[in-house]
Amino acid sequence: MTANDAGEIFQTSTMAALLDGVYEGNVSIRELLGHGDFGLGTFNSLDGEMLVLDGVCYQLRGDGSAATADLDELTPFAAVTWFHPDYTVQISEPCDRAGLKSLIDESLDSTNLMVAVRVTGDFATMRTRTVTKQQKPYRAFTEATHDQHEVTFTDVTGTLAGFRMPNYEQGISVAGYHSHFIDKDRRHGGHALDYRLVRGTVHISVRSELHLSLQRTPQFLRANLDSADMDGQIRRTEGG
Amino acid sequence: MTANDAGEIFQTSTMAALLDGVYEGNVSIRELLGHGDFGLGTFNSLDGEMLVLDGVCYQLRGDGSAATADLDELTPFAAVTWFHPDYTVQISEPCDRAGLKSLIDESLDSTNLMVAVRVTGDFATMRTRTVTKQQKPYRAFTEATHDQHEVTFTDVTGTLAGFRMPNYEQGISVAGYHSHFIDKDRRHGGHALDYRLVRGTVHISVRSELHLSLQRTPQFLRANLDSADMDGQIRRTEGG
Repeated sequence: MTANDAGEIFQTSTMAALLDGVYEGNVSIRELLGHGDFGLGTFNSLDGEMLVLDGVCYQLRGDGSAATADLDELTPFAAVTWFHPDYTVQISEPCDRAGLKSLIDESLDSTNLMVAVRVTGDFATMRTRTVTKQQKPYRAFTEATHDQHEVTFTDVTGTLAGFRMPNYEQGISVAGYHSHFIDKDRRHGGHALDYRLVRGTVHISVRSELHLSLQRTPQFLRANLDSADMDGQIRRTEGG
Repeated sequence: MTANDAGEIFQTSTMAALLDGVYEGNVSIRELLGHGDFGLGTFNSLDGEMLVLDGVCYQLRGDGSAATADLDELTPFAAVTWFHPDYTVQISEPCDRAGLKSLIDESLDSTNLMVAVRVTGDFATMRTRTVTKQQKPYRAFTEATHDQHEVTFTDVTGTLAGFRMPNYEQGISVAGYHSHFIDKDRRHGGHALDYRLVRGTVHISVRSELHLSLQRTPQFLRANLDSADMDGQIRRTEGG
């Protein structure tokens, strides 16, 4: 870990490449965990959602299950950081996803920086989706997510891990909030679509350094990263 | 210099922030040169164009003059890398800016990565502009460039230093080509608007790692980085 690593978000590939069907990267989970202990992403062939928490990488699959990922697995898209909370927001009144986003936004000095967000709490409901393993030839992400499985958990305690990225990173990353969920026992989870938080604690880690690592794979080099409907595609697939 | 530094482009702040009038950064030239020996940018208060070549930082002013910058000067926007050419293109037929861009594009495996470009050659003409020192309250960049000075050099030998960035970095950086010029004696130069290259050598350094370092200054935190006309503003001020 270098001095820079301590304060940066490390990201491999871009959301635009994922949208174009670049589902195979060459960064292993072992390598990814050398760049941070907190974050999210997906696995090669879109084989589940990824959540990194306390240095452990979890693979969240279509049936709502969670398991520790094999360190030799590869990722086509992931972002991680060393999570050191700058401040904490206590949530004592129930709120939904939009309400929580507003509470966090109000606590920020600026939406021009990047923010890692960790929410630990009790959720009355947690609706998740999980992408499922794709076969070649790969379809675009908007089509691949037609296969996604949705699972709703009720009365569940767990953690949301994710980022709030500035609008100008749309395409490179996901602008706005993007979070994955895992329960307290680390047995279930998925990409958070909507939820109702009863009470919880939000840890915020403000980040001003981004290390964007592009891929030199043939698929990435050939990808069309200039979709005219980038913004719409990301909002539809990532749930805005 | 860490292992990562060797292959990355280090950039402080964003083009979008510069467009919004964020003309004061807190990164010194001394610090910048710790991240690379090649690149470009500007100085606090837009006091001239910056060109970094062979580890020396030059300040190009409105009268077309060039001088070595003070290491304690600060920059609100700059990008540098350690320049190690991956390959070379010889230019033996005269060409203009559009022609040179096409020749370089044709030599690239992909326009999805970042490229540092160094062109050393004989120019029949070299039309440059230089931004000039602004007074507070700062105006937006599209207005500040109304004060720019244009100088055209003829029959001049020198070096163009710059980058070709992928389209998805528009706003964070300048999409496409962005180059500054300095003559062989390192006495004159500016931001290259147009030119006619008689003959020259193009060194290309392909980059897949970007270290984007955002500023935590009050000005950056308050900036509006979401201009609806970002693309048009960058094309008009940077000359496409």
